[in-house]
Amino acid sequence: MTSRVLIKNLSALDDGPVSVSGWVDTVRDQKKVQFVVLRDESGAVQLVNPRTTDADGQVVADEPATSISGLAQGTFVTVTGALKHDERVKLGGIEIKLATLTVVSAAIPETPIAADSSLDKRMDWRFLDLRNPKQNLIFRIQTTFEHALRTYWIEHDFIELHTPKLMASASESRAELFEVGYFETKAYLAQSPQFFKQMAQSAGFGKIFEVGPAFRADPSFTSRHATEFTSVDSEISWINSHDDVMQLHENLMVAGFTAVKARHGDEVKALFDVEVTVPSTPFPRIPLAEAKEIVKSRGYEVPRDDDDMDPEGERQIAAYVAEKYGHEFVFLTDYASSIRPFYHMRHEGDASITKSYDLIFNGTEISTGAQREHRIEVLEAQAIEKGLDPKEIEGYLDFFRYGVPSHGGFGMGLARVLMLMLHQASIREVTYLFRGPTRLEP
Amino acid sequence: MTSRVLIKNLSALDDGPVSVSGWVDTVRDQKKVQFVVLRDESGAVQLVNPRTTDADGQVVADEPATSISGLAQGTFVTVTGALKHDERVKLGGIEIKLATLTVVSAAIPETPIAADSSLDKRMDWRFLDLRNPKQNLIFRIQTTFEHALRTYWIEHDFIELHTPKLMASASESRAELFEVGYFETKAYLAQSPQFFKQMAQSAGFGKIFEVGPAFRADPSFTSRHATEFTSVDSEISWINSHDDVMQLHENLMVAGFTAVKARHGDEVKALFDVEVTVPSTPFPRIPLAEAKEIVKSRGYEVPRDDDDMDPEGERQIAAYVAEKYGHEFVFLTDYASSIRPFYHMRHEGDASITKSYDLIFNGTEISTGAQREHRIEVLEAQAIEKGLDPKEIEGYLDFFRYGVPSHGGFGMGLARVLMLMLHQASIREVTYLFRGPTRLEP
Repeated sequence: MTSRVLIKNLSALDDGPVSVSGWVDTVRDQKKVQFVVLRDESGAVQLVNPRTTDADGQVVADEPATSISGLAQGTFVTVTGALKHDERVKLGGIEIKLATLTVVSAAIPETPIAADSSLDKRMDWRFLDLRNPKQNLIFRIQTTFEHALRTYWIEHDFIELHTPKLMASASESRAELFEVGYFETKAYLAQSPQFFKQMAQSAGFGKIFEVGPAFRADPSFTSRHATEFTSVDSEISWINSHDDVMQLHENLMVAGFTAVKARHGDEVKALFDVEVTVPSTPFPRIPLAEAKEIVKSRGYEVPRDDDDMDPEGERQIAAYVAEKYGHEFVFLTDYASSIRPFYHMRHEGDASITKSYDLIFNGTEISTGAQREHRIEVLEAQAIEKGLDPKEIEGYLDFFRYGVPSHGGFGMGLARVLMLMLHQASIREVTYLFRGPTRLEP
Repeated sequence: MTSRVLIKNLSALDDGPVSVSGWVDTVRDQKKVQFVVLRDESGAVQLVNPRTTDADGQVVADEPATSISGLAQGTFVTVTGALKHDERVKLGGIEIKLATLTVVSAAIPETPIAADSSLDKRMDWRFLDLRNPKQNLIFRIQTTFEHALRTYWIEHDFIELHTPKLMASASESRAELFEVGYFETKAYLAQSPQFFKQMAQSAGFGKIFEVGPAFRADPSFTSRHATEFTSVDSEISWINSHDDVMQLHENLMVAGFTAVKARHGDEVKALFDVEVTVPSTPFPRIPLAEAKEIVKSRGYEVPRDDDDMDPEGERQIAAYVAEKYGHEFVFLTDYASSIRPFYHMRHEGDASITKSYDLIFNGTEISTGAQREHRIEVLEAQAIEKGLDPKEIEGYLDFFRYGVPSHGGFGMGLARVLMLMLHQASIREVTYLFRGPTRLEP
């Protein structure tokens, strides 16, 4: 028996017997010859089966011809045949002349989704939607991107954490928390690993990272929000300011984009018509107050009562940065203390602003980072100022009572990076199985 | 300003000015000289401060002497001083003669745990417990082990998945499920990514892996169970039997153990008195029925009414394998259909046994793997036989109605591997923050 060859490896083989396995993409059942485009996880190849004719020149109903005629799209098959290189074949310059065809699993002939189905309908049938080479590529890119980040972390002696997602109490606020029945009591799903990655600093771990799920009971239906998402987190000790965090962050992005461009750049260009650009460092850094002035001078007044930016403001400042620096990324820094969590450190000279940043990529926020307040008296005072009861976060505050280094870090939404990298309209496109207020299936 | 040097990098430096940051491990405040052992994420170093004496030979209360006298264990400091190589210094043959000492964060003098504290008490103060070099090493080993697995997967073209942990319905059974309030409805926490990793097979992803949390509302208090644990999962297409899964599995274990031995073997020997052994392949494979006979011949009758093994039986068969093959691992294969889930494929010639296995490491089960039943009629019949209502798993069954390749995979508990690798008595020791029926904090 010839063992299975991945389709992408066929073109490097000499003409001769091969076996491939995959699913049926299209069948052209012509009078004298049958063509099947077969797809596997690595590519697509044309199978060809000239019909047998009898002495009178009539087509004979033999095998595999009869089986081919009955193939529904999506049917998984294993075939054997003779590989032949032929420049005239548009699909990769090769084809396989069929010898045998074995149906492993026949598909129902009526496919529930088509190329023009709505996103929602495609999500209902996500396993079929993901057979599309474009959708498949998204997850190969995600794999490459993540592995590049992890390799950077490992090479720099970071420790990988798996922090618990079940918590006894709220991590940051009681809002947007999912409640879980937990034996005789209740638990909550972690909105972020924030407290636990800070705990690692107090534990003397030095530098840590985690890639894992986070949960927000956020009832919004925007293209950027999900109730469950993959959060990319890192935290480092002994920093002088949030600038150290930004340096780590931009180095990670460079590692990720370099790997994606090298491994998938051509495919991304072909399937998404997008050029993957490896960003130069340092990324532009603009204090938020200055960014708001810039946006204003471009004719856009951020319509908010608080000191925050809004999505349109982020798009405007990104446009400015693209024009001025030719850069897809920008760090907006020094957010007002009024709109940042209690654990963000404030500037020494001006407590009204924090040592924090948002990272904007192609006009949308993908991450928040900061130096953390590690001085227990200051931290406790800031918690009280934000209306938190120190008793409710006693366990967290303990991390700062037995010694802790200065530290900081960031959390980044993985799907947002992919969405913006591939110019997709929604994180639904780049999430394996999206979860939203009205979607828990499949 | 001299920039921070990691303690492990000091010995390679020439004598001269250095700066190190870390936490105070011990202080010996002698009359004429003070010694501090300082620890950071990479090691420990001795700081020395000869006391200043006045013209009468009396000790002067100057700095940093006064600060050193007041240092509580766990206080985080940054120091500068002169590095000096001196063979007589037991701790690495180097010491730092102190120039300046800056307290970054003072610890409360009373440390709530000691070396002889109970495991439960240590877990209450996990961030202090983790400062112990032994505890720290566990998570560096975990990092290395995981990265070796991931590198193997990446090099073999696997796609990394992040499957949702929020599900609309039970994945396998309604038992041991945590229920989550989800807007106007309910959701459940995934017990495993089983259904979603099989979905990737139907989606044509070929080979996938995931490392992520899984949740079991299991009220047991054994040393091997947790309500939340990190599950290592992989699933591959186009297999002929569960043997293909076992081959993948043993290759992954070899990759992981090779990396751990190379990077941490000496430390493991020093701190745990354990020799890390890279297992040889193929791992021994013993059908379960045969294993039970072997155990019986050793004088142990498995006290169960069903066809399963029990923990003592697993220890016995592991002892047999250690004696006979000198191997720490054994695959027990072909479990009875009666004790396996409906989606395990059964043997062609004997439907009473499944194409499945458990992997036993040092006497304890760490993983279950199997070829999956991909033929929809057979799968549906097996579900019904197990008392499942096909309507309740309709979405899952759909994955098999539109074509699917043969496939199989495994799920493995990460903490169990570490526990058994380091000869620890409980997974609590090797879990960053353990979750059990009565533990949700810190």
